[in-house]
Amino acid sequence: MPPERFHEEDPFAPVQYSYDVDAVVCRRRTRHQDLMIFDNAYWGRVLVLDGVVQLTERDEYFYHEMLAHVPAHAHPAPADVVIVGGGDGGTLREILKHSCVQRAVLVELDLGVVEASKEFLPTLSSGFSDPRVEVVEMDGVEYLAAARGQFDLAIVDSTDPVGPAEALFGSPFFESAFSALKPEGMFVAQTESLHFHRDFVRDVQRRLTQVFPVVRLYTVPVATYAGNWWTFSIASRAHDPGEPRRKLEVATRYYAEDVHRHAFLPQSVYTRLMAGD
Amino acid sequence: MPPERFHEEDPFAPVQYSYDVDAVVCRRRTRHQDLMIFDNAYWGRVLVLDGVVQLTERDEYFYHEMLAHVPAHAHPAPADVVIVGGGDGGTLREILKHSCVQRAVLVELDLGVVEASKEFLPTLSSGFSDPRVEVVEMDGVEYLAAARGQFDLAIVDSTDPVGPAEALFGSPFFESAFSALKPEGMFVAQTESLHFHRDFVRDVQRRLTQVFPVVRLYTVPVATYAGNWWTFSIASRAHDPGEPRRKLEVATRYYAEDVHRHAFLPQSVYTRLMAGD
Repeated sequence: MPPERFHEEDPFAPVQYSYDVDAVVCRRRTRHQDLMIFDNAYWGRVLVLDGVVQLTERDEYFYHEMLAHVPAHAHPAPADVVIVGGGDGGTLREILKHSCVQRAVLVELDLGVVEASKEFLPTLSSGFSDPRVEVVEMDGVEYLAAARGQFDLAIVDSTDPVGPAEALFGSPFFESAFSALKPEGMFVAQTESLHFHRDFVRDVQRRLTQVFPVVRLYTVPVATYAGNWWTFSIASRAHDPGEPRRKLEVATRYYAEDVHRHAFLPQSVYTRLMAGD
Repeated sequence: MPPERFHEEDPFAPVQYSYDVDAVVCRRRTRHQDLMIFDNAYWGRVLVLDGVVQLTERDEYFYHEMLAHVPAHAHPAPADVVIVGGGDGGTLREILKHSCVQRAVLVELDLGVVEASKEFLPTLSSGFSDPRVEVVEMDGVEYLAAARGQFDLAIVDSTDPVGPAEALFGSPFFESAFSALKPEGMFVAQTESLHFHRDFVRDVQRRLTQVFPVVRLYTVPVATYAGNWWTFSIASRAHDPGEPRRKLEVATRYYAEDVHRHAFLPQSVYTRLMAGD
C-alpha cells in the first residue's frame, strides 16, 4: 500500500508542497487551529497548523538557530527575552543555550501547540522545563503593549501574517516592541519568503524604519517553507545587528560567526528589494 | 472549473511540488524525453522534462545569471565558451551578453528541447540566432573528450544526474573538461541542492579537486527547484573564481559584484559539508 500523502494548502504560495505521510501521530482541533503531526521517513516529525507545515524535525534548526542566535549574539548580553508565538519551543530551546539569559517569556495565544509539542516533539520542547521559562497564554500584541523597558530581545516566531498573526506586523505592534525593549534591545521577526512575499518584506522594513533607528534584513535557506529563501527582519535600538558582539559559546549546527555576517543580504539585493524590483 | 494541477515527480526530492496549470502550451515526446510546457499565472511559462520542472519564466534568471556570470566575470576575458546541455537557451543568452565572447558552442543531446524553446520560450531562446552560436547535437562527454585547449569556459547546464546526465559528474568527464580548457579556463556545473543532495555535492567537490588546482562551491536561491538552496561547483585552472575580475558591464536582475562574492558559502558551512555533517 503506498503511503498517504499530505498536500499543503498555503494560501501565500504559488507552488504547493506535498509530503509522504508514514503515520499520523496526532490530529486535533486546538482552541484556535487544526493541528496535525505526522511522521515522514526523511523529515522526521512534521508539525502542521491549519494545513501549513510549521516545522520538520530534520531542518527546523536552520530557522530556529537563525531566529534566536543572530539577535542573541549581536546583543552585548541578553538577560531578558520575550518570544511571541513559537509554541513548539524551538526558538526557546535555542535562546536558553545562552547562559546570560535569566528570563525567557513565551507568549503564545494557542497553548494547544505547546501541549502537542511537549507530547510529540521532545527535541523541540525540551526548554519548557527550564526554570528560567515563563509561558503566558495571551495575544502578543497585548502583552508587549503592557511591557515597558523590560526586555533585551523581543522575538516574533509567528505563523503566516493572516488572522491573529497579522497584527504582529503592524506599526502599533512595532511601537509596543520598541517600548518593551531596554535601550540596547533588539527586535526580530520571521517575515516570509524573499521570493514570494517581497511586497510584505518591503512593507515591514519600511514600517520598522519609522520606529527603530537601525533596521536590517537577513535570510536563511529553509527547505520546507514555500519560497525557502526565508527572511528575518531585525530592528535595533542601538547596535548594528549585522555584527556578532559575542563569541560563539553555544552548540549549533548551522549558525556560526561567518554565517551570522553572511546571512545579511548583499547591498545590491537589498536595494533592488526596496526599490520594488 | 478549477485549473488543472501539475504534480512534479522528482525522484531526488523528499518533498514534491505542484503547480496550477492554466493552459498546456506544448506536450510532446522528443527523441529522448517527455517535454511539456504550460502556462501559470504567477510563474509564466514552465518547462517540464520527464516530470521535473526545468525552469519557469519568472525565476529562471536567478539560475541562468549565476551559472553564466560568475565564471564569465571571474575569468579575465572569456572568448570561447562551451555549454553542455542548456537546450532552453537561458545560459546561452546570458553568456552572449559578454562582448568578449566570440564563440559559444551549445552541445545538446536533445535538440527537441532547443526546438520547443525556440517555439514557445522566446525570452529564453533569443540567443540562438546570434552568429557567434554553434549548436552541436552530441553527448557532452564525447564532445569535450575531443576538444583540446579550446575553451575559456566550460559550463554544464544539465538535468539531474541520472541517465545520460550522470556521466557529466564523473572523473573521466572532469578530466576531459580540464583538457578542453585553455590555461586560464574555468569549469562550472549545476550540482543540485545543498539541502537534499549533500553527498552528491561533496562527491563532486572531491572528484573535481583531483583534477583542478582550484575548486569552490557557490549557491543561488531558486524557488522552483526542490531544495532551492542550489549549488554550482566551479573549478579553475588558475584564478580564484570567488573574485570578479572584470567590472559588471552586462544587464542583470540578480547577479552583481557583491552577489558574486556573497554566493560563495561561509567557510563554516563548507567545512561542515565536506566533513559529512
